[in-house]
Amino acid sequence: MQSVNDIKWKKGMNVGELINQFGKAGFQGIELSRAAEIIAKMKRDKAKIFVTFTSNMITSGMRGFFAQLVKLGMIDVIITTAGGIEEDIMRAMGEKFLITNFNADDIELHEKGLNRIGNLLISNDSYAKFEDTFTGMLEDIYKKEKRITPSKLLNEIGKKLKDEDSFLYQAAKHNVPIFCPAITDGSIGFHLYFFQQNHEDFIVDDIKDFKNMMTSTSWDERKGVIALGGGVAKHYAILITMISGGFDYGVYITTMTPFDGSLSGASTDEAKSWGKIKDDADATTIVGDATVFFPLAMTKALDILAEEGIIK
Amino acid sequence: MQSVNDIKWKKGMNVGELINQFGKAGFQGIELSRAAEIIAKMKRDKAKIFVTFTSNMITSGMRGFFAQLVKLGMIDVIITTAGGIEEDIMRAMGEKFLITNFNADDIELHEKGLNRIGNLLISNDSYAKFEDTFTGMLEDIYKKEKRITPSKLLNEIGKKLKDEDSFLYQAAKHNVPIFCPAITDGSIGFHLYFFQQNHEDFIVDDIKDFKNMMTSTSWDERKGVIALGGGVAKHYAILITMISGGFDYGVYITTMTPFDGSLSGASTDEAKSWGKIKDDADATTIVGDATVFFPLAMTKALDILAEEGIIK
Amino acid sequence: MQSVNDIKWKKGMNVGELINQFGKAGFQGIELSRAAEIIAKMKRDKAKIFVTFTSNMITSGMRGFFAQLVKLGMIDVIITTAGGIEEDIMRAMGEKFLITNFNADDIELHEKGLNRIGNLLISNDSYAKFEDTFTGMLEDIYKKEKRITPSKLLNEIGKKLKDEDSFLYQAAKHNVPIFCPAITDGSIGFHLYFFQQNHEDFIVDDIKDFKNMMTSTSWDERKGVIALGGGVAKHYAILITMISGGFDYGVYITTMTPFDGSLSGASTDEAKSWGKIKDDADATTIVGDATVFFPLAMTKALDILAEEGIIK
Amino acid sequence: MQSVNDIKWKKGMNVGELINQFGKAGFQGIELSRAAEIIAKMKRDKAKIFVTFTSNMITSGMRGFFAQLVKLGMIDVIITTAGGIEEDIMRAMGEKFLITNFNADDIELHEKGLNRIGNLLISNDSYAKFEDTFTGMLEDIYKKEKRITPSKLLNEIGKKLKDEDSFLYQAAKHNVPIFCPAITDGSIGFHLYFFQQNHEDFIVDDIKDFKNMMTSTSWDERKGVIALGGGVAKHYAILITMISGGFDYGVYITTMTPFDGSLSGASTDEAKSWGKIKDDADATTIVGDATVFFPLAMTKALDILAEEGIIK
Repeated sequence: MQSVNDIKWKKGMNVGELINQFGKAGFQGIELSRAAEIIAKMKRDKAKIFVTFTSNMITSGMRGFFAQLVKLGMIDVIITTAGGIEEDIMRAMGEKFLITNFNADDIELHEKGLNRIGNLLISNDSYAKFEDTFTGMLEDIYKKEKRITPSKLLNEIGKKLKDEDSFLYQAAKHNVPIFCPAITDGSIGFHLYFFQQNHEDFIVDDIKDFKNMMTSTSWDERKGVIALGGGVAKHYAILITMISGGFDYGVYITTMTPFDGSLSGASTDEAKSWGKIKDDADATTIVGDATVFFPLAMTKALDILAEEGIIK
Repeated sequence: MQSVNDIKWKKGMNVGELINQFGKAGFQGIELSRAAEIIAKMKRDKAKIFVTFTSNMITSGMRGFFAQLVKLGMIDVIITTAGGIEEDIMRAMGEKFLITNFNADDIELHEKGLNRIGNLLISNDSYAKFEDTFTGMLEDIYKKEKRITPSKLLNEIGKKLKDEDSFLYQAAKHNVPIFCPAITDGSIGFHLYFFQQNHEDFIVDDIKDFKNMMTSTSWDERKGVIALGGGVAKHYAILITMISGGFDYGVYITTMTPFDGSLSGASTDEAKSWGKIKDDADATTIVGDATVFFPLAMTKALDILAEEGIIK
Repeated sequence: MQSVNDIKWKKGMNVGELINQFGKAGFQGIELSRAAEIIAKMKRDKAKIFVTFTSNMITSGMRGFFAQLVKLGMIDVIITTAGGIEEDIMRAMGEKFLITNFNADDIELHEKGLNRIGNLLISNDSYAKFEDTFTGMLEDIYKKEKRITPSKLLNEIGKKLKDEDSFLYQAAKHNVPIFCPAITDGSIGFHLYFFQQNHEDFIVDDIKDFKNMMTSTSWDERKGVIALGGGVAKHYAILITMISGGFDYGVYITTMTPFDGSLSGASTDEAKSWGKIKDDADATTIVGDATVFFPLAMTKALDILAEEGIIK
Repeated sequence: MQSVNDIKWKKGMNVGELINQFGKAGFQGIELSRAAEIIAKMKRDKAKIFVTFTSNMITSGMRGFFAQLVKLGMIDVIITTAGGIEEDIMRAMGEKFLITNFNADDIELHEKGLNRIGNLLISNDSYAKFEDTFTGMLEDIYKKEKRITPSKLLNEIGKKLKDEDSFLYQAAKHNVPIFCPAITDGSIGFHLYFFQQNHEDFIVDDIKDFKNMMTSTSWDERKGVIALGGGVAKHYAILITMISGGFDYGVYITTMTPFDGSLSGASTDEAKSWGKIKDDADATTIVGDATVFFPLAMTKALDILAEEGIIK
């Protein structure tokens, strides 16, 4: 068995070195280092990589990081929720999100037209501008297709964005499908509804996307999941691969823990009872804020893969 | 200001009495007592009551409790996820879910065809039987309507169930709409897909349900939300009422806390910055397992309302 | 295996009935019901019962509940921290603690001389009055014993309190030792120090109490631990019984979970690796606020024991 | 207000760079970056720096990191619990702690004489060897002083250790006092007791250390606290400075959150109501595993201070 080693600071130490130290130090640092290695292995073994994330992660600076990862070929399938979609579009339009505090005065913020997400803010203005932009996009897309799946809709939107830091843009550019099973769960929902009021034959067909999700991988293909946070996105990914044998690699990063039985807090162990992750999969669960742990794990994994000439 | 009072046991003490003691004792007990009073107030003030819950709560015995609450007139609108729908149908079909432990051996469970949700189990058999039943239901419903909203679909399914303890059945019987914006996020998704393979014109139109959600309440109407757990269901409810002025009453029961910025852990305070809950709303957040705290809060609220002759 | 049963409300339902329902419903409700049964079993089997709790629980109304439990013979040994000691004395002196909110304005509270503990408050006045009272008590006790163990000190203090709702008083009255290994970790620490300044031969001998802790039980005796919250109190209890074979029964109620390796979040499972809890012990861990879950579990246990004629 | 910036990976990126990106990205990354700046400021402003930590952190590789920090002059006062003391001594004796998994089989571990702390292990052998070593040390120390404070005891032990990676050794070498108000809360407690059995006049005087704690700082002196985890250590530090005006800087890193009223989960905000942290202090709370977040924050702080020529 590996022994515990002391952590030592060295001036200008790089992220990979510190995480290697974490891997022999204890607790979530060990899981973080394992996660980095599993992610590198996914790519090295040419597995198809599914990444799921919640909307708040797109409110944060992780948004551009996902874009970069798509560009580097580290992500093959994305599953997320509507909030993440609209916020990526807002950022692509030049809107800025702001930094505040967790204990900001919410009544005051409401009066100023600022909406709080943790210690971040999105202004009412951003939502107003989004409305115009998005409705214009729907007009164009509707001309091409009246009955469209969410993933096709997101692909068409992505092509229009032209922002290197937009994950929608990079996904469209690199043919990475984005699945969003609850596409109406955001202000996007309002705009899709209003559009349908004027175009009664406009349909967003989520059932058809279920087929696209299922055929995005096969029994023979090696596949891995990186589930950041929980919710519908995490559930949808592990559900789909159940019929193609389950994931071979799994990394969960969540702030929740399993004691309330929810899927959001469930570990990769629980997924094994369902066959959603294989019995012998390379899998681990990190408990912590994914907006810190994921870039850390990825940085080490990307450094390894760059060193091996597998990326860039 | 109210002082702290000591808790005292009395033989055969009823739930309401103990919660009243909690209300003057401390910490989450105070929030629990406040929540019970807010819920009673919602009903007394004839507010429209929205209840959201996650699937794992339907795996638990809360399933029949929701059915009873609908029957008592305590719930006007339900929002939940696909897992909860299929599990209610399975129970209505006579399937049993089993009790295990959080630290059960997942590999062993997988071999026995048992799928773990926290300390509960659903067998593969239950899913197999569900497939036949559900596909049969779709055949019937398709004959009446080819393009159907999720809420209509759930209403039609509910009518077929004939199980007093099914929340789908009670909701259909009492005209309580059930919204499920991610209707494909479960094995239901598989069956809807297979059905659509054979019936190409079969469409589940979620955008149309967005209208139904919006028109389920109005600016003038007093409205309250009870959000159990987080995820899409919680987000959808508070999103909708944003355009009808926000909720007047809010009770959140969640095991998450706000430090990662996710909506699941967000408190009723954060919702005020969005106008999703009014500045002066009667609102509170309880941190704890909703399958314990919700029946506790409801028991006190129902006892009060029964006493006042408002229910039963 | 036991199946999941639906929860049903019944007007005026008593706590025991609801918890029995929880025992067949799911998640933490199952652990709560198991805990109640383990506690009843401890008493029925005449086990020596160790209860540990953190200071914030004494700030709450659990303070008088512990007093009642000592009176009923449900607690044989107490381990807690200094904050709990001084707060019990303050309450016995007639001081009131107040109820506020978790998001109260801390700067404002500081200006008003109110100190916040979660959603409760203790005033600076209470601390000032405590100083006089406690110093007076030390004067008396010093006359009898100059070198005293913390448990003896707390026993002498308890005798002076004459408040039925004081756990220190009930413990002294019923010969229940109270161990407090960090006796200086509170304002008590200041007063002990000032007293020692004037009485150089005044010594509080904690090492001697280690012997008293060890001899409070024996290898042959059946023993159980109820650890509420974490910290030094929890650690001390399970440490001690390591040399008398480990606990036969264990109930942990904690809001923490094990992912950071701390003892506070450790489950009864981890304790088994140490032999601090026997391999085959009746043990469970509830994740939740102990000021809600402990009175719930105890109420069911006490109702059972009262029914069986074992208490009162 | 600062806007959210996207995170970008760069090959070989150093820790400081990534944390600077976190500082403009969101959620706990923002708190992490703030914490690093506050720590650098503490040192730059020549504040007296108090660091508190729980025992599990010494089981991990943070043990040697604390030693290095003392050597670099970053820590002026340490407060911790008994477990941390004995584990540092074991490591100094050459004992190794091992890495396992959070879900290891505890019954099996017990049979193998391995004791679990999260995903780490300490063997029974290590405790056996510790007993001999420690008792020998007590013999020597007793000859010099029969009535000794815990901090003096730890200082004398530290001098004997001669291990550059031992925090006890570095603290003794650099005159950094270590306070341990619950010195008997570990196997050390057993050995102190057995020693006292044979040397009745041997006294560990914790009250006298209260004076040492109080005089370790003054009203005029600027002071900062870094509280890692919770418990007695955290409480003791913030208690002490209450009488010298409160801390000017505060960084808490904890996995707990405040909803149960415990001190362990309390934020730096709550401390302001007590005057334990000044109203206008530079303070922040990070929610996450300290064995990951503290080395991250420190690495950035040390890089800044090294750049400014303030350390090494």
